Amino acid sequence: MINKDRLKENFRAVREKSPLVHNITNYVAMNFSANALLAAGASPVMAHAADEVADMALIAGALVINIGTLDAAWVESMLKAGKAKHNAGGIVVLDPVGVGATAYRTETAWKIIDECHPDIIRGNASEIMALINADIKSKGVDSSCSSDDAVESAKMLAARSGAIVVISGETDYVTDGSKVESIANGSPMMPRVTAMGCTASSMVGAFAAVNPDLFEASLNAMALMGVAGEIAARNSSGPGSLLTNFVDTLYNITEEELAQTVRQ
Amino acid sequence: MINKDRLKENFRAVREKSPLVHNITNYVAMNFSANALLAAGASPVMAHAADEVADMALIAGALVINIGTLDAAWVESMLKAGKAKHNAGGIVVLDPVGVGATAYRTETAWKIIDECHPDIIRGNASEIMALINADIKSKGVDSSCSSDDAVESAKMLAARSGAIVVISGETDYVTDGSKVESIANGSPMMPRVTAMGCTASSMVGAFAAVNPDLFEASLNAMALMGVAGEIAARNSSGPGSLLTNFVDTLYNITEEELAQTVRQ
Amino acid sequence: MINKDRLKENFRAVREKSPLVHNITNYVAMNFSANALLAAGASPVMAHAADEVADMALIAGALVINIGTLDAAWVESMLKAGKAKHNAGGIVVLDPVGVGATAYRTETAWKIIDECHPDIIRGNASEIMALINADIKSKGVDSSCSSDDAVESAKMLAARSGAIVVISGETDYVTDGSKVESIANGSPMMPRVTAMGCTASSMVGAFAAVNPDLFEASLNAMALMGVAGEIAARNSSGPGSLLTNFVDTLYNITEEELAQTVRQ
Repeated sequence: MINKDRLKENFRAVREKSPLVHNITNYVAMNFSANALLAAGASPVMAHAADEVADMALIAGALVINIGTLDAAWVESMLKAGKAKHNAGGIVVLDPVGVGATAYRTETAWKIIDECHPDIIRGNASEIMALINADIKSKGVDSSCSSDDAVESAKMLAARSGAIVVISGETDYVTDGSKVESIANGSPMMPRVTAMGCTASSMVGAFAAVNPDLFEASLNAMALMGVAGEIAARNSSGPGSLLTNFVDTLYNITEEELAQTVRQ
Repeated sequence: MINKDRLKENFRAVREKSPLVHNITNYVAMNFSANALLAAGASPVMAHAADEVADMALIAGALVINIGTLDAAWVESMLKAGKAKHNAGGIVVLDPVGVGATAYRTETAWKIIDECHPDIIRGNASEIMALINADIKSKGVDSSCSSDDAVESAKMLAARSGAIVVISGETDYVTDGSKVESIANGSPMMPRVTAMGCTASSMVGAFAAVNPDLFEASLNAMALMGVAGEIAARNSSGPGSLLTNFVDTLYNITEEELAQTVRQ
Repeated sequence: MINKDRLKENFRAVREKSPLVHNITNYVAMNFSANALLAAGASPVMAHAADEVADMALIAGALVINIGTLDAAWVESMLKAGKAKHNAGGIVVLDPVGVGATAYRTETAWKIIDECHPDIIRGNASEIMALINADIKSKGVDSSCSSDDAVESAKMLAARSGAIVVISGETDYVTDGSKVESIANGSPMMPRVTAMGCTASSMVGAFAAVNPDLFEASLNAMALMGVAGEIAARNSSGPGSLLTNFVDTLYNITEEELAQTVRQ
């Protein structure tokens, strides 16, 4: 069960401490993820140059690596930043976007896992399953599976990688390989807004930057994402207005409203 | 004349089959184009790494190449993906953004045409005219000509390239070099939303992925763009709200409403 | 004191002449900055390829260099474009995003200043102070200082660089090293919208492209940014709707309303 007092406390710490979240993320997500982090109270920075990623990662509260629009030069920077952050005892979050769609994505994701030892991995069901079962083929970057079907794969991935694993979907799941918690909030319109999953990974980074219990931080961040999406959808007439209302909701929601609306 | 039953059928197929559209597109357009494709029912992926573009192109229903923020490495990937897709008999759409503004853009666009043999080319009037007449100088990426003035150039470009050519503007035109069809919907505010044309090219890819008649698919996609823009503009107080309402309209519009609102 | 007649005249010239603004800017800002420029009446182009940046810079009314997501290849293009534009007597605007956060950013910003001789430099308080005082450490890209505290640094930077220096913040300041003017409009929600500062730099480029008095152009552009943000915030329930309303306001605001609302 989610601890509602600690959920409120975690969110309050994001707003009060405004942790710097260093994102090496994809071109599609950058603007939306930055706006969502700012609205929630965190401080985003996007930086990918080999000449500065290690420096930037070290001053940030968390590093979020997202392979959505990867290429050779960016992967080099991801590895450099991820290793520096991990070696310094910092928090690394990995979003393995589109894993299973091409061999290059799968190889790169595992390389990052093996070399940077991410503390948290967040993906949709197809991605989490593809990381564990090479026979799973993702169709692009959208999930073709239910998150319920990916729970066993997530537990295996957590055991193998040592990371907390988060599956986002109709129900969100968080596991450390043994215990599993879920969040049942959200809206069916959320997958129609691009980079909603990428933004969840960045939000996990923000919550983890101010909460040493990374399992709890992951669950709390997904609670905020699901609750804000659900509240925003009430007044949205489509994915365009959902995007706008989602950012407004992250800005306006009280810690109390978050705790009262979360469902498992 | 546009066939309204087949227009409805083509749009329904986009929503039911949710074709994967692989975009190698510009940084400005990526987020908006992805959101528009998702709202209309398609499944966008953005990927540009030389290490995976051919693989990604081959699993997609269509490949859309957009040179808006080209550079040497990206052009290499565009050519690699375009050749792979064409050689496999797949659909390639080219958006020659800013052709005529610099020699580099004009040379690159023709290199892509000659090597990848795009099935469909979509541009604004200045771009289509600049591809045919080297004396036309575009001013940046916005059109300085009326689409009406570009029809003859479009027919010549279709004849020379073998592609269906689409001109977007106050009136949109589609030609295969002999026949010409038009769409008269839209809003004068649409050119004030950046990447509206780029998004039209991606939408053409989505419609073409599920309709083997590429002339018809191009016309149908432009019908949806124009009708959705026109409906969205009714409730918009500027280009900011138009962007939001346009995405919402793509999500909500019925096939019947599309067919009833389209004008030629 | 701001000259309200010349403020109106400068804004009218942006709308009537629609100057081409060449942006070599960061991935986070590109879409929003392009939409803001289009809404205000200017014509944005984003282009960064070494093969074309000098050509593009020379046909533009102003070149805006923004180092927000810099890397070695982009910096090379920034220098190439900036030198070409400066040597041709054109206008170069520099936005030193995140200077002080990493040594790489500080070195790059000074390299651009020394080699391209920007006419105008716009940053937040932390950035302007970090350029002058190597001991100032920025936290990422958000300012941790008040703009009031940066005025002396801005005057020193103007004297050392020869550029007009603009500090954006709760109060915006413009200085040429001796005289200082300010703009007091805006909304506390503006820093919660990512790339608002980057967009201010692009707007300065648009105003400077049609007004040879660069001090005045900088002040006028900041007046439009502050007034539009303030008006937009009145009907906004958060940073998501502020973004939308800001673009709509840039499109709808009359020159008279701008002149009547500006406060110093």
